[in-house]
Amino acid sequence: MVYITRREIFNAAHRLFMEEWSDQQNLEVFGKCSNPLWHGHNYILYITIKGELDPQTGYLMDLRILSSIINDKIISKVDHKNINLEVEFMKGKIPSAENFAINIWNELNAELLKHNCALHCVKLCETENNYVEYFGK
Amino acid sequence: MVYITRREIFNAAHRLFMEEWSDQQNLEVFGKCSNPLWHGHNYILYITIKGELDPQTGYLMDLRILSSIINDKIISKVDHKNINLEVEFMKGKIPSAENFAINIWNELNAELLKHNCALHCVKLCETENNYVEYFGK
Amino acid sequence: MVYITRREIFNAAHRLFMEEWSDQQNLEVFGKCSNPLWHGHNYILYITIKGELDPQTGYLMDLRILSSIINDKIISKVDHKNINLEVEFMKGKIPSAENFAINIWNELNAELLKHNCALHCVKLCETENNYVEYFGK
Amino acid sequence: MVYITRREIFNAAHRLFMEEWSDQQNLEVFGKCSNPLWHGHNYILYITIKGELDPQTGYLMDLRILSSIINDKIISKVDHKNINLEVEFMKGKIPSAENFAINIWNELNAELLKHNCALHCVKLCETENNYVEYFGK
Amino acid sequence: MVYITRREIFNAAHRLFMEEWSDQQNLEVFGKCSNPLWHGHNYILYITIKGELDPQTGYLMDLRILSSIINDKIISKVDHKNINLEVEFMKGKIPSAENFAINIWNELNAELLKHNCALHCVKLCETENNYVEYFGK
Amino acid sequence: MVYITRREIFNAAHRLFMEEWSDQQNLEVFGKCSNPLWHGHNYILYITIKGELDPQTGYLMDLRILSSIINDKIISKVDHKNINLEVEFMKGKIPSAENFAINIWNELNAELLKHNCALHCVKLCETENNYVEYFGK
Repeated sequence: MVYITRREIFNAAHRLFMEEWSDQQNLEVFGKCSNPLWHGHNYILYITIKGELDPQTGYLMDLRILSSIINDKIISKVDHKNINLEVEFMKGKIPSAENFAINIWNELNAELLKHNCALHCVKLCETENNYVEYFGK
Repeated sequence: MVYITRREIFNAAHRLFMEEWSDQQNLEVFGKCSNPLWHGHNYILYITIKGELDPQTGYLMDLRILSSIINDKIISKVDHKNINLEVEFMKGKIPSAENFAINIWNELNAELLKHNCALHCVKLCETENNYVEYFGK
Repeated sequence: MVYITRREIFNAAHRLFMEEWSDQQNLEVFGKCSNPLWHGHNYILYITIKGELDPQTGYLMDLRILSSIINDKIISKVDHKNINLEVEFMKGKIPSAENFAINIWNELNAELLKHNCALHCVKLCETENNYVEYFGK
Repeated sequence: MVYITRREIFNAAHRLFMEEWSDQQNLEVFGKCSNPLWHGHNYILYITIKGELDPQTGYLMDLRILSSIINDKIISKVDHKNINLEVEFMKGKIPSAENFAINIWNELNAELLKHNCALHCVKLCETENNYVEYFGK
Repeated sequence: MVYITRREIFNAAHRLFMEEWSDQQNLEVFGKCSNPLWHGHNYILYITIKGELDPQTGYLMDLRILSSIINDKIISKVDHKNINLEVEFMKGKIPSAENFAINIWNELNAELLKHNCALHCVKLCETENNYVEYFGK
Repeated sequence: MVYITRREIFNAAHRLFMEEWSDQQNLEVFGKCSNPLWHGHNYILYITIKGELDPQTGYLMDLRILSSIINDKIISKVDHKNINLEVEFMKGKIPSAENFAINIWNELNAELLKHNCALHCVKLCETENNYVEYFGK
């Protein structure tokens, strides 16, 4: 069993808030992250898959294919976007790094299974001081 | 003459666009950066000042003071903000990294002169692949 | 189950040595790290906690709270300090990175349990080439 | 149980290809990485070992010894070398990052056991966007 | 006057040697870098241009255009290549980082002038410990 | 004219204080950095030299020679040392990053002139947020 990881980056705007709460309540729970006029991040995404090597090629999976799946399913939908308003798979969900990582897992997992590859970890870095990891359970 | 640099970080949302242009025209010139629903960045700001050492303390300037000036004049006004809509010193200006760096210079310069310190460089990193430097002329 | 990590940094002096050994014996076992006049590091500390998301907020734990616990229990006690002489929870212990990480775990763990959060990993980087991880068992 | 990691770096040339395939076939499977005139990388290698602390020294293992084993068994054999042509333990194997990491594990493992240290992970970074991890099974 | 920098990365193989010297002489002058079977690097290239802002767009130059020029004139010719054997603009020149940076300058400069942009600096990082800067004179 | 830079790292302890001042006065001016029981840093040192290429070798200077000069004149004297008490060239000087960089310049400059190389810049990073540059005048 070998684990390979591909790094991809994207930039996006978001806001942490509960629609049913007042701006004041949101400010108390989410602080600056609830700014009604948005803020944003350079997100760094690490996708780790696991499996057996192809004995011929020495590859677990061609990283160009992994990169193209991540770009197709995730990056093209979130890069330079507003996560609250424009990302279908985050609709109605608070775009905390935790929720975001879990939903990226859900988007990628089905597609990777078609390539006989098991998703192992989604790691999402929001700032140089904070990151989230999700292993699917 | 010695040069000292302080690094500070902040997160913000912005959009590159000309109000008098259509969304289509803005898209042609600014690409994804003109997304009407915003995107954002983790900005990294490097402020370099220059001058002679204080022969007693061996300091050009106490970096806690430099950091507190940068936080007071810049970070507190831009962190977790929308640069187009909420930052007084960027009002009416396209928030390209170039324009942003020049206006950060203008905000800081007057204050630093009061401390007998000459601002040397504002370096503003927008992504890991792009940055701007401005030396005041 | 989601894992979130907070990075904090601090600077400190230390020395690796056994009081009952001669300087020569200490030099043989600990090399330069036993210098009787101390040396120091910029330590980087990664604290990872794990748990279920709050279904309302999408948070595992507010990172401002996690950061304030780490600063209260650890950073305020070790930053710009001599680990051998000034850090209560390291008294009588050789401040190897291994021992240091284990004792940081012990300090943090009780406090995090009060917030219903399970500590998962303490990762302590001493130089760009060396780091230690401790998972509590 | 504590985990300590040592980072080492090296530079090398390699080429991904199957001898029995034509250049055209290799190009289809391995892309630019099959260039018959070679390309190369700055590899970053992280070796993680695990075990109990020595209660006296507070060390899992003296990192100077770990570093010297890694240099003796791996770095001296791969640094500034052609992995396909000059590295004995990679002879006849496609030098994908996956295969390379597994074979580094095999080279190191026996030696570390002699020091009563258990190898936990070989992490090999080929570019800033790609890395492989192998845990020995 | 503002300075903007674009970072691009590529991987390549090379060898430092003088054709008219014996392998032994080359080894004495260039050490491991003269290995006849090649070695390689992950190069990091920083291209800095300078000029006045376009008062309308707030751009010195659209970074997508700068990136596409660098990719067209440099990256496409050196990425996953053998610098000694496959790079037209390095033919007959020892591919030291110094020579490589100067020749990248020469390749880019003419093209950038056509876009009314002045090249300011080519910075080429060969390893995390070594880099070269060239300012055109 | 080309500029080449070599990076070297070292760890050391220090304290900022004026002997003739009380601990209280030192605390007011230097804050935590005046802790009488020391603190320390992982210093990163960048040494930049400038000059013409050797037309034969394509080298400004063999970086192994530059590295060995820096190690001989600086690193061996400061690594794992107490800068206030053990570094001859810092005796009687407050080891601020500014003073430290200037004195490293003075130590290196004479030696580099013997190799017909002009020292261009000493850059000394004390933390990830602070660094000093000195150009010799």
